[in-house]
Amino acid sequence: MTFSTMQERPLLISGMFEHGRRIYSESRVITMSPGGRHEATYAEVGLRTHALAHALRKLGVGIEDRVGTFCWNDQAHLEAYYAISGMGAVLHTLNIRLFPDQLSYVVTHAEDKVILINDTLLPLLAKVVHELATVRHIVVIGNGDASCLSTAPNAQLHRYEDLIAMSLDEGDYAWPELDERAPAAMAYTSGTTGNPKGVVYSHRSTYLHALGLASGATAGLSERDMVLPVVPMFHANAWGIPYAGWLMGCDFLMPGPLLQPEPLVNMIQKEKPTFAGAVPSIWTGMLHYCEGKDVDLSSLRLVLCGGSAVPESLMRGFQEKHGVTIIQAWGMTETSPLGAVSYAPRQAKPEEQWLYRNRTGRVSAGVEMRIVADDGTILPWDGESVGEIQVRGPWVTASYYGVQDGVGEPSKFQDGWLRTGDVGYVDKRGYCQITDRAKDVIKSGGEWISSVELENVIMAHPSVLEAAVVGVPDPKWEERPLACVVPKPGVTLTEQALHEFLSDKVARFWLPERYAFIAEVPKTSVGKFDKKVLRAQYADGKLTVITRG
Amino acid sequence: MTFSTMQERPLLISGMFEHGRRIYSESRVITMSPGGRHEATYAEVGLRTHALAHALRKLGVGIEDRVGTFCWNDQAHLEAYYAISGMGAVLHTLNIRLFPDQLSYVVTHAEDKVILINDTLLPLLAKVVHELATVRHIVVIGNGDASCLSTAPNAQLHRYEDLIAMSLDEGDYAWPELDERAPAAMAYTSGTTGNPKGVVYSHRSTYLHALGLASGATAGLSERDMVLPVVPMFHANAWGIPYAGWLMGCDFLMPGPLLQPEPLVNMIQKEKPTFAGAVPSIWTGMLHYCEGKDVDLSSLRLVLCGGSAVPESLMRGFQEKHGVTIIQAWGMTETSPLGAVSYAPRQAKPEEQWLYRNRTGRVSAGVEMRIVADDGTILPWDGESVGEIQVRGPWVTASYYGVQDGVGEPSKFQDGWLRTGDVGYVDKRGYCQITDRAKDVIKSGGEWISSVELENVIMAHPSVLEAAVVGVPDPKWEERPLACVVPKPGVTLTEQALHEFLSDKVARFWLPERYAFIAEVPKTSVGKFDKKVLRAQYADGKLTVITRG
Repeated sequence: MTFSTMQERPLLISGMFEHGRRIYSESRVITMSPGGRHEATYAEVGLRTHALAHALRKLGVGIEDRVGTFCWNDQAHLEAYYAISGMGAVLHTLNIRLFPDQLSYVVTHAEDKVILINDTLLPLLAKVVHELATVRHIVVIGNGDASCLSTAPNAQLHRYEDLIAMSLDEGDYAWPELDERAPAAMAYTSGTTGNPKGVVYSHRSTYLHALGLASGATAGLSERDMVLPVVPMFHANAWGIPYAGWLMGCDFLMPGPLLQPEPLVNMIQKEKPTFAGAVPSIWTGMLHYCEGKDVDLSSLRLVLCGGSAVPESLMRGFQEKHGVTIIQAWGMTETSPLGAVSYAPRQAKPEEQWLYRNRTGRVSAGVEMRIVADDGTILPWDGESVGEIQVRGPWVTASYYGVQDGVGEPSKFQDGWLRTGDVGYVDKRGYCQITDRAKDVIKSGGEWISSVELENVIMAHPSVLEAAVVGVPDPKWEERPLACVVPKPGVTLTEQALHEFLSDKVARFWLPERYAFIAEVPKTSVGKFDKKVLRAQYADGKLTVITRG
Repeated sequence: MTFSTMQERPLLISGMFEHGRRIYSESRVITMSPGGRHEATYAEVGLRTHALAHALRKLGVGIEDRVGTFCWNDQAHLEAYYAISGMGAVLHTLNIRLFPDQLSYVVTHAEDKVILINDTLLPLLAKVVHELATVRHIVVIGNGDASCLSTAPNAQLHRYEDLIAMSLDEGDYAWPELDERAPAAMAYTSGTTGNPKGVVYSHRSTYLHALGLASGATAGLSERDMVLPVVPMFHANAWGIPYAGWLMGCDFLMPGPLLQPEPLVNMIQKEKPTFAGAVPSIWTGMLHYCEGKDVDLSSLRLVLCGGSAVPESLMRGFQEKHGVTIIQAWGMTETSPLGAVSYAPRQAKPEEQWLYRNRTGRVSAGVEMRIVADDGTILPWDGESVGEIQVRGPWVTASYYGVQDGVGEPSKFQDGWLRTGDVGYVDKRGYCQITDRAKDVIKSGGEWISSVELENVIMAHPSVLEAAVVGVPDPKWEERPLACVVPKPGVTLTEQALHEFLSDKVARFWLPERYAFIAEVPKTSVGKFDKKVLRAQYADGKLTVITRG
């Protein structure tokens, strides 16, 4: 009895695809765009996906070749997801918000052979297309003028719909029976130092992650849902919604480029999605937009929100004004991304609910987490002991693609665990709280100050739009916090007012002496606070810093 | 890029266990018994499970050794599930309703080294204990008199609580890092011919199956649920509830031996489970018991029901009288068992809902199904084409343990697919309808008659308690249906009344000429109609058959 009697069936993306296509052929993929609304059934998407696979094969795409996508969330992008991975090639979702030199770097580093691109995004690719030597074919979705791509050194241009039309009558593509550990998709994460680094997802990891997302502990997806992935399909696979949603037969509401509050509110009211995923800034904008308006968002039974900490005011606002439950979730490109989800525990009393919902997340089934002190000690889950958060699991990366780990910077892995670079603690119920990015922690006179927590308190001031706190050198304490604050438009705000506001909310030694009022917090390509820019500006004397006595 | 960058983490039952134990330490396992109610937290169950593993190790249990359980659904059985599989041994759940010779056969065939047994079940094991030569240790749960086991040829007796107590202070057992395809559990299915045959589940299959059960398409389990597995833990692992429930952190309500309507209704009202699983006869009994009583079963948001076809009247009764949704599901020991679940599709109009809810089930994610004609043709999913139902998937068996397939009887497998032995069709929405067991199909003058469908129509007669239809030889038509009918107590029923009742409900050539009124339909050890007994009784002239003109 060396092994069981169970069948050896690989977990493949083509299997997920054919399940959804066959069992839920009438489920719909609705795509919104400035030009209007387009609807297709799974059956139609299925035929087109097979046609796309035939077409890519004819363009020379083979097993493990990388195919980039430079797209919004729409039907064509979903077709690309399944055609590329299904045929054994590797889907490389390109972040349309990358800076040009990063974009050029990742396409070249991944050796993308083909790029699929929405015509509305052509100007962004045009900036770097002359550098993309590995790219042999560029497939344009839409009819927009593509002449801006003429400087592509080695690439032929095609129209997506021409390729589909030419292959639609060829019948089903024979999806290969791959090893489930074969590469299926990849995404680069724009680190805070150095070049972006690639993570390569397998068929297995993608399938397991989809089951994790579909479980009752996360989203509980079923055919009765309509999912609205606002989170881009170029951000960690839109958190797996394209996979789990299709496997479960959900309707899809694809927002295309319509990511502003007004069109989002309109499409939610009209199409009535039941589940959505997006970063906090999207929901903040919508909450603000809805103020004083008579809107009905109550079709949403659940919103997962992550990418950065979710303010309690945002969750409360949606709950109280719109009857919509926003649940905070945590993950990274490196974790596929599902890592933790912050439903309040059943045992919590009503007044304790928000304590838990404000946590970064409760560790998800399939993911293991540990907190590691600087000296390597594994710390207890006591809700107090702070250390680096490390994770492990079948959908967590073990390395970066084509990068020798630890060369030029500290290793990102330890004994088979991913070092998240986040610092925090876990309580006895498995709720993790990130208190800081490891590199953003401020160490003042031997004591830790959480820049994230300090920012949250500052942002609770009614006159503050946003705030970032960074550590700056200090002759006495080694490091002290500098509060970079963006006041709300038309409001006067003083460092004295902030100081008084903070005085009874944080420990005395946390109170910043240094304030800088700035117009905007610099952001990374994925919209996170880019503190290294602030630190550099401070070092270069480019910030006007007010120092309290 | 041969493989992805994802971590190679095996899917292990010990991993599921430690997740539940650590994240949901306060979740509860409540066990009901005639002696009262016992409650333990996951934390407590966790410690005891580790202690049990230590104890079994000391008894000589090693990797891949088989440990049998002869138990009700209770806390100790759950501890055994996780301790045995976690330590790399193989959990062999023994069906307490097996006939003695079958019980002796399966213990010996599996070479069970240890048996854990509830003291209330000792008399059943005592009948065969003298034959159990492979068994070295028998561990009795409870304090009942175990002297009836004295004829065990090679076994030492132990008390479960003594073993736990002796090992409780040894700390965590070091669960081995196994290959995920390693054997974790096994169950024998009592075929209709020959000896029972064993299916060996792997860690991988069990983990994947648990995720399938936890998904929104099946049960959507989460920590907010309390699960009530009425289906025995010796029937296909209680449909995976012990695994999925624990992984998701659900409270457990374990009914122990209290499987009668009254105690079940009482415990549902008192403990308020949200999810339950049981075969139709349990729910039929409860529905009947509740008539005229003021009961509240509304804590149940979902009941999965399977094992045999679920009557519409049962589902409607619970929906209308108790606001409880019963969803039909299909599976086999060979399929872990999740195979198909009959939620109505979103597209169904209100009057169509029952059409779908009456289907055997919509194919589950992770399972592939095909309908194969006698000549090997793969039939379309048109809702009409009837053939053998075959399934494939990572939690479907590829063979039987220690059995050379196809020797002495037809092969149970075809090109890597499991031949279910059921006959039916699938519609375009992926709903499967079993029309018969392959061996129960009646072929009359070249036309098929579904014995199952005929039974259902007969059982809709208000005076019929139950009915089984078998094919018997016929000089003119080769085979014709014989209706074996059990009237309700105290009711007079004639074949003429049944004939008239059926006349406008089935095709003319389906109408039986032969009726037999019997006291009870013979059942197999798992409670299914045992038609081979009826056929034998007919052949031996032991049935009083009334033949219509």
